[in-house]
Amino acid sequence: MGKLKGKAVVAQSGGPTAVINSSAAGVIQTALANSRVFAGIYGALNGILGILREELYDLAKEEPCEIDRLKRTPSAALGTCRHKLKSLEKDRADYERILEVFKAHDVRYFFYIGGNDSMDTAAKLARLAGETDYEMIAIGVPKTIDNDLAYTDHCPGYGSVAKYSATSVMEAGRDTEAFYTNDTTTVHEVMGRNAGWIAASTGLARRSPEDAPHIILMPEVPFVIEKFIEDVRACLKEFKRCFIACGEGVKTPEGEYLGEAGGAFARDAFGHSQLGGAADAVRAIIEKEVGVKCRTNRPGTAQRNAMHFASKTDAEEAHMAGKAAVEAALAGVNGKMITLERNSSRGKYVCTTGLADLELVANGEKRLPREFINEEGNGITDAFRAYALPLIAGEAEIEIGTDGLPIYARLAKYMVDKRTGRDYPVR
Amino acid sequence: MGKLKGKAVVAQSGGPTAVINSSAAGVIQTALANSRVFAGIYGALNGILGILREELYDLAKEEPCEIDRLKRTPSAALGTCRHKLKSLEKDRADYERILEVFKAHDVRYFFYIGGNDSMDTAAKLARLAGETDYEMIAIGVPKTIDNDLAYTDHCPGYGSVAKYSATSVMEAGRDTEAFYTNDTTTVHEVMGRNAGWIAASTGLARRSPEDAPHIILMPEVPFVIEKFIEDVRACLKEFKRCFIACGEGVKTPEGEYLGEAGGAFARDAFGHSQLGGAADAVRAIIEKEVGVKCRTNRPGTAQRNAMHFASKTDAEEAHMAGKAAVEAALAGVNGKMITLERNSSRGKYVCTTGLADLELVANGEKRLPREFINEEGNGITDAFRAYALPLIAGEAEIEIGTDGLPIYARLAKYMVDKRTGRDYPVR
Repeated sequence: MGKLKGKAVVAQSGGPTAVINSSAAGVIQTALANSRVFAGIYGALNGILGILREELYDLAKEEPCEIDRLKRTPSAALGTCRHKLKSLEKDRADYERILEVFKAHDVRYFFYIGGNDSMDTAAKLARLAGETDYEMIAIGVPKTIDNDLAYTDHCPGYGSVAKYSATSVMEAGRDTEAFYTNDTTTVHEVMGRNAGWIAASTGLARRSPEDAPHIILMPEVPFVIEKFIEDVRACLKEFKRCFIACGEGVKTPEGEYLGEAGGAFARDAFGHSQLGGAADAVRAIIEKEVGVKCRTNRPGTAQRNAMHFASKTDAEEAHMAGKAAVEAALAGVNGKMITLERNSSRGKYVCTTGLADLELVANGEKRLPREFINEEGNGITDAFRAYALPLIAGEAEIEIGTDGLPIYARLAKYMVDKRTGRDYPVR
Repeated sequence: MGKLKGKAVVAQSGGPTAVINSSAAGVIQTALANSRVFAGIYGALNGILGILREELYDLAKEEPCEIDRLKRTPSAALGTCRHKLKSLEKDRADYERILEVFKAHDVRYFFYIGGNDSMDTAAKLARLAGETDYEMIAIGVPKTIDNDLAYTDHCPGYGSVAKYSATSVMEAGRDTEAFYTNDTTTVHEVMGRNAGWIAASTGLARRSPEDAPHIILMPEVPFVIEKFIEDVRACLKEFKRCFIACGEGVKTPEGEYLGEAGGAFARDAFGHSQLGGAADAVRAIIEKEVGVKCRTNRPGTAQRNAMHFASKTDAEEAHMAGKAAVEAALAGVNGKMITLERNSSRGKYVCTTGLADLELVANGEKRLPREFINEEGNGITDAFRAYALPLIAGEAEIEIGTDGLPIYARLAKYMVDKRTGRDYPVR
């Protein structure tokens, strides 16, 4: 039996990261280098939406140097979305539409870069293709700043947001240290819907007890107001200032988010709460209960795209994961996600890739393990440091223009003619 | 008449910046190199508070390499404050206390690194010293991320916050561009109480019309809600997304701040409003009136300390200003602030230092001139680009530790024995 030949589609999904484009570059460059198998390599405009709408573009027509520049470009240059497909039963028409589009363009390979919702979609698509005897291969490439995917040691995107967040907390922490007579406390809010991996990473900035962050609030540890106030007071007594790193997904013991942003858009298309008010809630508590002034920082989307101080290790591993996905597909692997595996060679961190079932990844979630959180529940342990430090090693290369600002890639996106002969309205 | 001999005190004041320590290094290193004149060089703990409280430390005892590292360290390593002294009449006791402390330690030189409030303090101190026949020299070194000091082309601190803010907006802008199907609009709030210099700087990220920021809200332009909604709608029509950079000090046509942070600490010791809610106000308007989802970013104090991507030009000029202050003092200059003067040599930007009266600087303020704001009032002009681009040129050097994070200086602060024989309670 000869190798399956046909086109490949690569798509990005979910929230952007500093290195998801590096994974895309890994997929595209490796596919282009194997043109005997891959009759073409298409990008999907805005993830799964682009497939449903048959909005595909030909990546072979892009300048090779612009594809390479994706390795040094944050966000999701292919376009991304948060459109969730439900079960094969409930959203069968969508899955069938995807296969219709793939068949119309002879797409035989699907590389999906995303988190567990994306792995779920890819898994179901692979199942339907198998059931309907359409020969195709679906491979997932992990991506999430949240670092909460199961079956992989860590996720591309995490090392960069960790390096940047720890650095920002170190720098803003020096502000509070110098200016405590005016700004006595500061709450710095970082992302992380359900898991405290990013919040924990800010703890890397604390080389000595006086360094920020003095208190880390993580979603894994219920926020007990009395304990928190006690912690803040003790910190003020010792250091005259208190710097708090706060995960956006911190919850009360009753399981309510500390900061639910109100308004009409409090829930997104996935039914997830739109968070972002945790720091404001913490600030109100400090000003009212402790009686000192509190500042809030919330870098928001700037944190997950901070290529200007991203981790070299992370960027390289992201590219490696994309390359490994194509290599796995070439080897006939199907229905798997690429994983990152940690190996130590004489005490030196070494990272290789492995494989995990898409379905297992889709249904898993990896929160901060207990041994990474200190006994008090307000900081990290040496075990976490040992885990995280290799992931933030090195500074990712970027290009700087004559104007002193980074130069990031933008794809031309040469759209491919539609072939299915019909529009498909997406809800 | 021989040169005035005695000790020097250097102090930092107001909000920290990425390069105020570079100015301190310029002062300290130049003073140490002229020990025949400067019998000692002391730091004041937390600006003017440290002088009032006689909390001084001996900078000559610090490791020279740690002093040099100040050039690569953000925030205010000497300690800073926002303690404002009023007129010589109203706060005469404070000014007399300062002279008492100076006399007790034979301090003949005072170098004050700060904004216009600090220049005001230094001016009044110099006047009182003259009136009471205490021979001393007071020199100001400009510092403010807000870039709003008069009589200087620009202020140390501005170039770095501009470079970082433009980069963050470029990066977060790519997020909105890639993810518009989910996060259609984003408001990114930057500092700038009365002047739009930082907000304007984010416009440098917009190399082509599709780039962020599409709309810039500046305090100099009253926020007219109808016009704003129209701008957002037009932008959404053209680009399917809209990224807004918003200065914290944006006001309504009635002169009210768009976002007044509530709570017990809405006003600081200077009587300034504590801002920070402008982005939330803009978000509410967009979600209600335009009906699309809006995200908010607010880097807060992380922006003004972002040494990890600071301007090399800014860091070098900050050091130059500190050095020039000591050189001016050595030349007998008194009651002046060092200014930065822009010279062009064959089209190439060259910056030198000059002098301005402390009193004039204290009473001035430089807002964005009309010719730097576009006709519509929602963006910048080429004249602003020409002004700002040289200020963000180059990336400031930093040291990175084996843990992948920056290494910043921390002074040992060897306190000097008190000599005035009394405590001085500071309100």
